[in-house]
Amino acid sequence: MITQPRRATRSHAPAAKPKAAQTRNATAWGWGILAGLVVATSVAAQDATPLQVPAKSVPVPGDVSPQMAKVIGAPLRANWAIQPRTGEEWKPVAEAGAAALARQVPGMLARLKVTVERTTIDGVRAFILTPDDIPPENRDRLLVHVHGGCYVLNPGEAGLPEAIFMAGFGRFKVISVDYRMPPEATYPAAHDDAMTVWKAVTRTTDPRRTAIFGTSAGGALTLAIVLRAKQEGLPLPAAIAPGTPMSDTTKVGDSFVTNAMLDNVLVSPDGFCDAGAKVYANGHDLKDPMLSPVYGDLSGFPPTILTTGTRDLLLSNTVRVHRKLREAGVEAFLQVGEGQSHAHYIRDDTAPETKAVFMEIAGFFDRHLAR
Amino acid sequence: MITQPRRATRSHAPAAKPKAAQTRNATAWGWGILAGLVVATSVAAQDATPLQVPAKSVPVPGDVSPQMAKVIGAPLRANWAIQPRTGEEWKPVAEAGAAALARQVPGMLARLKVTVERTTIDGVRAFILTPDDIPPENRDRLLVHVHGGCYVLNPGEAGLPEAIFMAGFGRFKVISVDYRMPPEATYPAAHDDAMTVWKAVTRTTDPRRTAIFGTSAGGALTLAIVLRAKQEGLPLPAAIAPGTPMSDTTKVGDSFVTNAMLDNVLVSPDGFCDAGAKVYANGHDLKDPMLSPVYGDLSGFPPTILTTGTRDLLLSNTVRVHRKLREAGVEAFLQVGEGQSHAHYIRDDTAPETKAVFMEIAGFFDRHLAR
Repeated sequence: MITQPRRATRSHAPAAKPKAAQTRNATAWGWGILAGLVVATSVAAQDATPLQVPAKSVPVPGDVSPQMAKVIGAPLRANWAIQPRTGEEWKPVAEAGAAALARQVPGMLARLKVTVERTTIDGVRAFILTPDDIPPENRDRLLVHVHGGCYVLNPGEAGLPEAIFMAGFGRFKVISVDYRMPPEATYPAAHDDAMTVWKAVTRTTDPRRTAIFGTSAGGALTLAIVLRAKQEGLPLPAAIAPGTPMSDTTKVGDSFVTNAMLDNVLVSPDGFCDAGAKVYANGHDLKDPMLSPVYGDLSGFPPTILTTGTRDLLLSNTVRVHRKLREAGVEAFLQVGEGQSHAHYIRDDTAPETKAVFMEIAGFFDRHLAR
Repeated sequence: MITQPRRATRSHAPAAKPKAAQTRNATAWGWGILAGLVVATSVAAQDATPLQVPAKSVPVPGDVSPQMAKVIGAPLRANWAIQPRTGEEWKPVAEAGAAALARQVPGMLARLKVTVERTTIDGVRAFILTPDDIPPENRDRLLVHVHGGCYVLNPGEAGLPEAIFMAGFGRFKVISVDYRMPPEATYPAAHDDAMTVWKAVTRTTDPRRTAIFGTSAGGALTLAIVLRAKQEGLPLPAAIAPGTPMSDTTKVGDSFVTNAMLDNVLVSPDGFCDAGAKVYANGHDLKDPMLSPVYGDLSGFPPTILTTGTRDLLLSNTVRVHRKLREAGVEAFLQVGEGQSHAHYIRDDTAPETKAVFMEIAGFFDRHLAR
């Protein structure tokens, strides 16, 4: 018989077809009896029993490019569960990681025909990225980039890949903020540095010709800069592109659970990234909109383009920001990459999916920035 | 020591913090040694070992309304694994399910102030839905609705909830097609019926004042109508709203795996819905764009708004259509509901999330339809 006890369908039921013998023996009358249960799965309270999802074997999807398949098919990030508790403990982690990433930067610059120079803007470390050729419509435009890395990773050149991709694919001039991180400084140092650069930009460039973008912690900082600019009565950029923003560091968001152990970058809400954010916050309330911007007042925000992936641990925190922006009447566009975990779109500039993401953002900026 | 064998992090590792004792004993030097592995998770081939995701207990997310929490927290659909093999076997399933759904229709009509009447359009069964008051800008506009249900479910009034929500929240006049399904007829009967209604509409209403919408199989039919109208040189609507479309019945799409046993509506790619689509296809090639429209030529499509949820089994098939539309240069907007499984937004008209979805679609139609 094909009838199963209700509980059996909720716990560890295999995601497989029922035995053929079961279905072949079913009569039309039998289907009718069952049908009453097929539709009306109403009720179940807000404090419903948690759903027990069985273990599963997840292959690399077949509908992505070979380059993205490599990124998606990589094992879970090694040592995703490390929990450095101080800036001093983070420093060697950040330095080793940065050395590995920085080695990829020259190739990215060459392939995307972008040059980079270090600078200091009102005391804040930054890089200026310039594409070899800038189309006429972008000559007077300027983008500000805030890198990601859980507020503790990607110092120096390691923070550049996303900025290079944006400068290269979009042919925009970009300033990338190399903000202070633990152990050099904790909250609000990164926020302050980003604000310092933003203020400097607004003094030299018409804000209507600017945009701010960044991924992960950089996506949260992008949102936080706008929140703070609103508070301080400063000009706002003409558009922003927060990519998979750490918009809620309090761990609210369904995909923190549903995509845990599936997202091969962040892996778990209790992993390295959570540890990093806490060290940066240094005891400051994590629900403060500066650290969890989904709780901020998003009214009056400039047009916003958000990027995430179907396996992203921050999928929920991206779509929640999207919905809040729409409820605030803000033009907001969402793109979601097939099979992609957290920030997979800033890994391999030769993947067509990467170019697609940045061309979408570039087009969005082009539509919203004055020339 | 915090070092784990690489394989251990890939198979059945618990999504929990490492033991405090492990991390407290780590020295800064120790973190540095590990850091080299933290960043560079490159390589791994397209034929990478499938990721082994451990079993997990998934609570109802806390950031949704009480009404949506009930929908999300409901157990897996009873008998999701049934496999009726013929239209005759489906008939009692569809009738019992339809009876349960139809009982909800009068309340929906009353709450949303919509009236409904049966009609026949060039021989095709249909319903005409009229909101009590139609704002001036919508007086000459008309929407066509194609219901969902895996091409075998929701005959008659059971197909109306989405049409009622659209008519009620958006204050549009709607024609809902009660297309033929197995055992009455198989492919291309539903497609033919939808086309017959679409042709009739274009004879009486300026196509620039029309839109087509539908969810699941109805989302696929929405896309298929446009593909076929292009082929036949017929006028296109001014906008379409395919909700979580069954855009790929060949089971390609990452979320078929990642959201299996998590989506409490479709539950599995090998469940009842796959069985229903096969009975309707009746041996026709499932990769034909009429049945898997993600493989169709989407160039020249009208502006499109797509809806899905983070737990939707068809999340991937929705975002894949979104990307293909964007690559074809089509204006396409994506909205993704926090925590929602397949088509949760057409379950409870009193949930604020439901209204938000339909107001977003209504706004999109208002921007794209002539007055």
